[in-house]
Amino acid sequence: MTDFSYLNVDNAYKLINQKVTKTPLVTNDYINNLLEADIYFKLENLQNTGSFKLRGATHKITKLIENVKVSGVVAYSSGNHAQAVAYASMINSISAKIIMPKTAPQIKIENTKNYGAEVILYDSYFQSREEIGNEIQKKENRALIKPYDDQDIIAGQGTAAIEIVNDFKEQSIEPDLYLCCCGGGGLIAGTSTYLKHIYPNIKSYSVEPIEFDDTKRSLEAGKIIENKKNAKSFCDALLAPQPGNITFQINSNNLEGGLSVTDEEVTKTIILLAEQLKIVVEPGGAVAAAAVLNNKIDIKNKKIIVMISGGNIDLNLFNKLK
Amino acid sequence: MTDFSYLNVDNAYKLINQKVTKTPLVTNDYINNLLEADIYFKLENLQNTGSFKLRGATHKITKLIENVKVSGVVAYSSGNHAQAVAYASMINSISAKIIMPKTAPQIKIENTKNYGAEVILYDSYFQSREEIGNEIQKKENRALIKPYDDQDIIAGQGTAAIEIVNDFKEQSIEPDLYLCCCGGGGLIAGTSTYLKHIYPNIKSYSVEPIEFDDTKRSLEAGKIIENKKNAKSFCDALLAPQPGNITFQINSNNLEGGLSVTDEEVTKTIILLAEQLKIVVEPGGAVAAAAVLNNKIDIKNKKIIVMISGGNIDLNLFNKLK
Repeated sequence: MTDFSYLNVDNAYKLINQKVTKTPLVTNDYINNLLEADIYFKLENLQNTGSFKLRGATHKITKLIENVKVSGVVAYSSGNHAQAVAYASMINSISAKIIMPKTAPQIKIENTKNYGAEVILYDSYFQSREEIGNEIQKKENRALIKPYDDQDIIAGQGTAAIEIVNDFKEQSIEPDLYLCCCGGGGLIAGTSTYLKHIYPNIKSYSVEPIEFDDTKRSLEAGKIIENKKNAKSFCDALLAPQPGNITFQINSNNLEGGLSVTDEEVTKTIILLAEQLKIVVEPGGAVAAAAVLNNKIDIKNKKIIVMISGGNIDLNLFNKLK
Repeated sequence: MTDFSYLNVDNAYKLINQKVTKTPLVTNDYINNLLEADIYFKLENLQNTGSFKLRGATHKITKLIENVKVSGVVAYSSGNHAQAVAYASMINSISAKIIMPKTAPQIKIENTKNYGAEVILYDSYFQSREEIGNEIQKKENRALIKPYDDQDIIAGQGTAAIEIVNDFKEQSIEPDLYLCCCGGGGLIAGTSTYLKHIYPNIKSYSVEPIEFDDTKRSLEAGKIIENKKNAKSFCDALLAPQPGNITFQINSNNLEGGLSVTDEEVTKTIILLAEQLKIVVEPGGAVAAAAVLNNKIDIKNKKIIVMISGGNIDLNLFNKLK
């Protein structure tokens, strides 16, 4: 079993809190009245690089360069981890090579390059990003920065929960539920660990695209289950093939269960969040909001934390949604 | 001379702070690096009803119903004040009639109706909204809620500055500059008064659409000057014909001067704010950001507060910008 605890998150925040943005926790009367509940949105789309991934990448790289001299890092990612690793590498003046699928959103590929990383595009159907990453790691003596299945990454992502707790304490609010998107499961593993420590009775749920509900089904089965090879979703940030080994251990311990949403529900949610909350959210960043807006769970009269994990959507796609 | 002071703002906040959203103050590494400055965006687009106007309307209506029994209220507005008055009336269970131009954005007209107000559309070229408003006020014994030239409205809008100051104090930051959009001048009058009280050396500037730069020219002339009758801008929230009498007195005392921006500069700014800051901003809400992004003033190495005043833009228009 993993020995991951809230202390990992506490220690991560000590290292990175001056290096990442403290993002807002906001609520909106229109949405609260609509749902007869109090929804608190954690806006990690307003994090630098446009997603929570900067927390984990900053933590991992900060620890890495404190301990050993590395010639550089390598990472594979559909896009948000890519930008985060590139950005944290740029800040720390180390070289980064990032392996990204050819189909990644243009904004994510461009930003990764703009942060000074070398981008290697691969075909996600025919090639294995893990194999390409491992080869570069060995050949060039680079440290591999995994996207989620690493305790330092999980601890970094978990720091979002410390900010949520601090904001709630100021207002003397205790949340009942926590809903968070889930790809490989790093964000929800880290944040749910910290939230459970502070609020022992909180009920946490993963939210996934309906064809990528591997965490939901794995939680139900009590063992790791993969997604189908031909599964499809436009939530590009949440297409991990299966739960991570470490993240699944943590999530099995913390979560009540898993929820899932359709691409159509996510599309409507992105539009509502733009019209009412005035924020730009990417598909993967909107699934937890889609779950509350589409009655996937009873929320009436409850206080619910809803994670908005990222906002890196091509504006051309965003514009076509409505 | 008006006796308006920071105390008006302090007293307003005591009355309304539980009724309005404490909006976030955010900063973004990408934009800061681009401009070589520290920009702090106050996100009043995340206020309930999508703009700062809820602060003034809530304050005015709260004071009104504390003192006298009113049969209802009437207001004229291009849209954000309309929504705010409608919303504050709904919350306080009083009737609201709102006079809006036929050309107001659809989202603003619809929201005003959805908040339960009766909307009266008028032709802004041939009819005077003030005359229509005054007539209804007398005939139906309704209280007129002016959009800006009223000390209670100005005090309410000013409360945004109290939240800015509280956020800065937590981080031990002192701002050098303050840039704020200016239509009738209520928001900048209230906020600049409070900011000047806390930071006596802060330099505050109004920002207006280039053909609606009445406050800029009035400040330069030392007297109120109107805009040209045929002036045009897509910043629908900032089309007041001239500065208010009270707001101009206050702004003459507080402001260093005025800046102006083109619609094209505003369009580019809305896109950049969506792509980098992940927020939806309406044209009038983006002019202060447009000023810093287009070098209208020297900001290098300075700490600047930039007011984002609202986000009520039709998504159809938003989608056409890029």
